Amino acid sequence: MAPFDANKLTRLMTASGVDLLLASTRHNIRYLTGGYYFHFVAQATRAGQSQYLPFVGLPRGRAEDAFYVGRVGERGQIEAEHLWIRDRMETPGGTLPPIEQVVQTVGRLGLDGSTIAVEMPFLPADAFLALRRGLPKANLVDATPILDELRAIKTAEEIARLRRVHDRVAEAIQAGFAAGRRGLTTAEIAGEVRREMARRDVTFLFAFTCAGPGTLRAPSSVRWEPGQVLHIDAGGEEGDYLADICRMGCFGKPSPLAQKLYTACLSVQGQVEQAIRPGLPCGELHTIGERGAASGGDGFHGRFVAHGIGMVSHEAPDVSANSSRLLEPGMVLSIETEFIHRDVGHVKIEDTVAVTNTGCEGLGELGREWQ
Amino acid sequence: MAPFDANKLTRLMTASGVDLLLASTRHNIRYLTGGYYFHFVAQATRAGQSQYLPFVGLPRGRAEDAFYVGRVGERGQIEAEHLWIRDRMETPGGTLPPIEQVVQTVGRLGLDGSTIAVEMPFLPADAFLALRRGLPKANLVDATPILDELRAIKTAEEIARLRRVHDRVAEAIQAGFAAGRRGLTTAEIAGEVRREMARRDVTFLFAFTCAGPGTLRAPSSVRWEPGQVLHIDAGGEEGDYLADICRMGCFGKPSPLAQKLYTACLSVQGQVEQAIRPGLPCGELHTIGERGAASGGDGFHGRFVAHGIGMVSHEAPDVSANSSRLLEPGMVLSIETEFIHRDVGHVKIEDTVAVTNTGCEGLGELGREWQ
Repeated sequence: MAPFDANKLTRLMTASGVDLLLASTRHNIRYLTGGYYFHFVAQATRAGQSQYLPFVGLPRGRAEDAFYVGRVGERGQIEAEHLWIRDRMETPGGTLPPIEQVVQTVGRLGLDGSTIAVEMPFLPADAFLALRRGLPKANLVDATPILDELRAIKTAEEIARLRRVHDRVAEAIQAGFAAGRRGLTTAEIAGEVRREMARRDVTFLFAFTCAGPGTLRAPSSVRWEPGQVLHIDAGGEEGDYLADICRMGCFGKPSPLAQKLYTACLSVQGQVEQAIRPGLPCGELHTIGERGAASGGDGFHGRFVAHGIGMVSHEAPDVSANSSRLLEPGMVLSIETEFIHRDVGHVKIEDTVAVTNTGCEGLGELGREWQ
Repeated sequence: MAPFDANKLTRLMTASGVDLLLASTRHNIRYLTGGYYFHFVAQATRAGQSQYLPFVGLPRGRAEDAFYVGRVGERGQIEAEHLWIRDRMETPGGTLPPIEQVVQTVGRLGLDGSTIAVEMPFLPADAFLALRRGLPKANLVDATPILDELRAIKTAEEIARLRRVHDRVAEAIQAGFAAGRRGLTTAEIAGEVRREMARRDVTFLFAFTCAGPGTLRAPSSVRWEPGQVLHIDAGGEEGDYLADICRMGCFGKPSPLAQKLYTACLSVQGQVEQAIRPGLPCGELHTIGERGAASGGDGFHGRFVAHGIGMVSHEAPDVSANSSRLLEPGMVLSIETEFIHRDVGHVKIEDTVAVTNTGCEGLGELGREWQ
């Protein structure tokens, strides 16, 4: 019934001593409902002197007691999309009516003295205070680590979604390079990438457009000049599934130094992708990348970063030097290598790969050659 | 120096006994900085197990002590956009490093025992708790009413921005009707409206697409059939300035009943717009609209709503039955009249007008006739 791994959630809640999980962010509401979020406010929750604030409540091991607290006016969409949660409540707008409904519901479920996990870096302060006032015997803890871990292994369907959004973002980046050759500013190139994502039904998140030899990555009035490199590092999302890719272009023939940096980037990315397989410790993956990024030669500043990606950028697994976590099939990783040189600018390639049973496969690989 | 009415802010803070205003939402950061927000995270603040959280701090009457707390990596954009605030601090990501920086800065300014207004319905719970822990002698109150009132009167430049975004949203709605005549579902029509906004550099917020005689407003698999009405009620934004407009279409010739409801809508809107002028009490405006919406005849369900609009929907002024607030030049109002009849569906017109010195002028008036 639940569209996520309910057994895994029960295990994670047990391990953290959590009796009730209370999610309130758009991405986690969508994850726990299988894609639902009230369309009217999906791009802007603010209204009046407060904001829209929905809740999904999941008592540990009791899927039948799951509840949803939303706002007056969203019932039509809930029914049209067949929300799996049966216990649905509507409240007036703002942050306080829904949290008061949550307080009542928690009491009805007999969980008012339990440990309740809420999304502490997201839950509004006034709602948190009302929850604590309404449930003085409850122990309120942070739900973020549980949800982060719950999302760590992607299903085949999620990987297909991530592939689709990565493909579209990669196409939008290509269109950005094509537009850039008409002598546009980096701000205009970023605008083109944004429009090209929208044409493909992808919500634009950001585009860094860095024209060499400068290193200003924010879109600006700088122009992409002949003979110079340009990187477009862009992100988009579809139903909260993210893509984040960086591709390189050169206006005309790259200089030998630019070519060297670019080849070094691809080489590091290749070494890392070759190494990825289930069972590889994340710390080792980091070491392989870092060793490669450090070997670029004199006068370069090299850097390697990898992290999980899905509904959140930099989600599980953590790929840092000391991470002993082993890679598993279904993990999705963003992998980036960059070299900065004052005569060339900022050369960067960022790819996303999904860990398979035997290795990994790229998502959105279009345009890894010079544009 | 400050891009907003600093004297008005001082008066509002004095009236509320507030010593320091601490804004953290995207729209208020933009309002107080004159448009700045870190572009990388402007469409999605979540990252890792936390989110991006910037602060603008404004000590009462001391513009020279204004401060900005952002994240590592945004300096390039801050300098390119000439942020007026000179005291700028960078912290690592997440909600806690910036609030710890705020705590230190408040101490440095000698305000650690003062009354500090924060955006209670938005500030994350963990940041609020850290602020209270770090400044145990401070009195934390809600900043939302102050900011709402500060934004109530729009400048000529703001009205020009609102006009531009309304014009573009009105054009996107027209394109949606044009597409709808090809026999699309209401979900496909909403998709068309979204893409048409993006083509015009407007960020899509929502599109209700309600095909008669049904009253499901959420985009769905329902088709717009010949002989039926369709309303497209859509919102978009540009730099956090919002547009929210509803237009009506009919596939073929409207029935006499549909025509009657539509004419009644326009008539109520017209009566209200005729009445709008500086000095009119908001409650009276509400009464005029409500009286009109109630007079639609038998079998109709009529409704009239008006509210301020700008960076937030339903912002000041409050236009409800008991509001004695007087209209002033520079206020911007959303005005909507709707009639529902089971044989026709949902007939609705929503306009935005700016109060002038002598009356009002419409923003985004395109397409008020039947589409």
